[in-house]
Amino acid sequence: MFELIKTDPSSRARRGRLRTSHGDIETPQYMPVGTQASVKAVAPRDLEAMGAEIILGNTYHLFLRPGLEVMNKFGGLHKFMNWSRPILTDSGGFQVFSLAKLRNISDAGVEFRSHLDGTKFFLGPKESMAIQHALGSDIIMAFDECPPWPAEEGAVAAAVERTITWARASLDHHRHLTATDETRPTQVQALFGIVQGGGYPHLREQCAKAITALDFDGFAIGGVSVGEPEPEMYKAAEATVPHLPEHKVRYAMGLGQPHQIVELVARGVDIFDCVLPTRVARHATVYTRTGTLNLRGAQYRMDGSPLDPACGCYACQNFTRAYIRHLFKAGEILALVLVSLHNLWFYQDLMRDIRNALSTDSFRAFRENFLRTYQTTKEKP
Amino acid sequence: MFELIKTDPSSRARRGRLRTSHGDIETPQYMPVGTQASVKAVAPRDLEAMGAEIILGNTYHLFLRPGLEVMNKFGGLHKFMNWSRPILTDSGGFQVFSLAKLRNISDAGVEFRSHLDGTKFFLGPKESMAIQHALGSDIIMAFDECPPWPAEEGAVAAAVERTITWARASLDHHRHLTATDETRPTQVQALFGIVQGGGYPHLREQCAKAITALDFDGFAIGGVSVGEPEPEMYKAAEATVPHLPEHKVRYAMGLGQPHQIVELVARGVDIFDCVLPTRVARHATVYTRTGTLNLRGAQYRMDGSPLDPACGCYACQNFTRAYIRHLFKAGEILALVLVSLHNLWFYQDLMRDIRNALSTDSFRAFRENFLRTYQTTKEKP
Repeated sequence: MFELIKTDPSSRARRGRLRTSHGDIETPQYMPVGTQASVKAVAPRDLEAMGAEIILGNTYHLFLRPGLEVMNKFGGLHKFMNWSRPILTDSGGFQVFSLAKLRNISDAGVEFRSHLDGTKFFLGPKESMAIQHALGSDIIMAFDECPPWPAEEGAVAAAVERTITWARASLDHHRHLTATDETRPTQVQALFGIVQGGGYPHLREQCAKAITALDFDGFAIGGVSVGEPEPEMYKAAEATVPHLPEHKVRYAMGLGQPHQIVELVARGVDIFDCVLPTRVARHATVYTRTGTLNLRGAQYRMDGSPLDPACGCYACQNFTRAYIRHLFKAGEILALVLVSLHNLWFYQDLMRDIRNALSTDSFRAFRENFLRTYQTTKEKP
Repeated sequence: MFELIKTDPSSRARRGRLRTSHGDIETPQYMPVGTQASVKAVAPRDLEAMGAEIILGNTYHLFLRPGLEVMNKFGGLHKFMNWSRPILTDSGGFQVFSLAKLRNISDAGVEFRSHLDGTKFFLGPKESMAIQHALGSDIIMAFDECPPWPAEEGAVAAAVERTITWARASLDHHRHLTATDETRPTQVQALFGIVQGGGYPHLREQCAKAITALDFDGFAIGGVSVGEPEPEMYKAAEATVPHLPEHKVRYAMGLGQPHQIVELVARGVDIFDCVLPTRVARHATVYTRTGTLNLRGAQYRMDGSPLDPACGCYACQNFTRAYIRHLFKAGEILALVLVSLHNLWFYQDLMRDIRNALSTDSFRAFRENFLRTYQTTKEKP
């Protein structure tokens, strides 16, 4: 499923290709987040135009709304939202632990109340696999327990144990469903395992060894992007990646800012997802080659330049900072649409640049140059 | 400026063409409303794709925000919002009387406080002409006084008098600015006069005779779409149109619903503007060939048909009612984008159908058929 095309001599970075039933994904790759069957404020035609090869959907949200009855009626998430390229869905575990009101946790799963209307549900490895089969996503994720940050070592160790137990159960039930469910006979759904372990390198190692001993199609670094400081995030990645097999794809969940993506690629990560580009867009924050800027600033009132002069997106090709700033000040929806579009385009450009640098053996120079140019301190999104 | 191509033998309907510095406008024509330099939730590329030949901007709103300093810096509204086709701006009078806090009214104009931050401003025929010259719109409107509905005859008569006085002042100052302002030497700005008179046919007639005695490029029916019942609106149009010259274009301000547009075309009106398509879209109301529907209804939860099966817009070509309903329920911005786009497309299709019927001498059949098919009683937007 994963073809390792090239490795970078200056770092752990890799250039690869992931095959799915809905098309190939060139890695390193960033996935726009379509939580509720929509990448916020951006239409599928624009995702296609910017070259997005895969998007992410959230099992927890889609399970609650529109729900499986609707999903089954329309033959899965691709058809429901009219997206013909690959989709990855998470397991729902992260949202159950972070959004829902928890009731009971057992080895079978979690009883919780919906954050929308309080309705009681149960979600465990079996249920998560069944939902993700109904969604028909190309890559599905094992059900895991993601501890909060910070957490005591004992709590993280327990989450690692449960994550390993649930990983086995996820794999078993996925095999069972694949063998028995004939809804999509031609579609192959890949299943990725998730490594937890918080900020404890020995727990990361222990979890990685147990999870990689199972026959997953790829591996994710979970328990990052949960509020930890940036050095802790890198530490977690560094404690995990060396224990992952070379010839399977690696996914850092929920990450990250542009410079973090470059640094994680250098640490051997292949795929990313992150809500930042669309989330900060709704607060007028714009990604540019030199860092982020916030359009609400008075200095952009008469600024006739595009959001990012180096960008080829519809917003940058047609509108000025002054105009889009005006749209924000006036509360116009088009402001959110244009900046969301631009920010996602920026991320796609970043990944293209990274892949191109790896393909042309110039990743080291690219990395140095990017980190010199992109000012993370200018403004924090 | 206005070429009368054909008149309908069964009604007062006309097929015409209006020439402006930014291109021709085929009439009957509907103008999407871009109050604050943006047609709400719709990008200019989509307005072009749906065939919109002209949009409307609001002088009052644009004067307050972004203001003339920004507008002058960018060379007018076309360049500021990147719209290369014609623009009509209103005079600001309607909003001053309906939105702002009024202070003093005199023959020179109105002193008011901004509804945004209470800042004091003065707007009269001279100021309105100066702002609309700065905006650089292709069609500008005379400054008028639009009485509320209902209003006593005395109040309406006074508004008619003031409207006539201001019409002369608008025309004088427009000529002065055209002769002296060399910002856009090649652009011709047309000036339309406005007929007031409320629900009093003799005041409509009196106002129409006085206004049409002046050398305006076109004439508008004002004081409609201000809360009056539908029969009163038709009565106002019927009391005005017969007093307007055959060879100048006629514009019904702020109108209307689809069946009202058909009926007003039959009464001799050529151009329309209306916020309904985008406003009701934000409340999930969808225009279809058979009337409006509200997507929040439970009956659309599993509905696999497009918003309107007869529509060729991006939303209808790609998404189901069930999906867009889900987007509304989930609070997704894409819902507003898709339904705004569709509703405007519906209006453009309606105008194309009207023009086509007039061109092929089949307006009578079209009108009968449209009013039979389009159920106004089904749901009121």
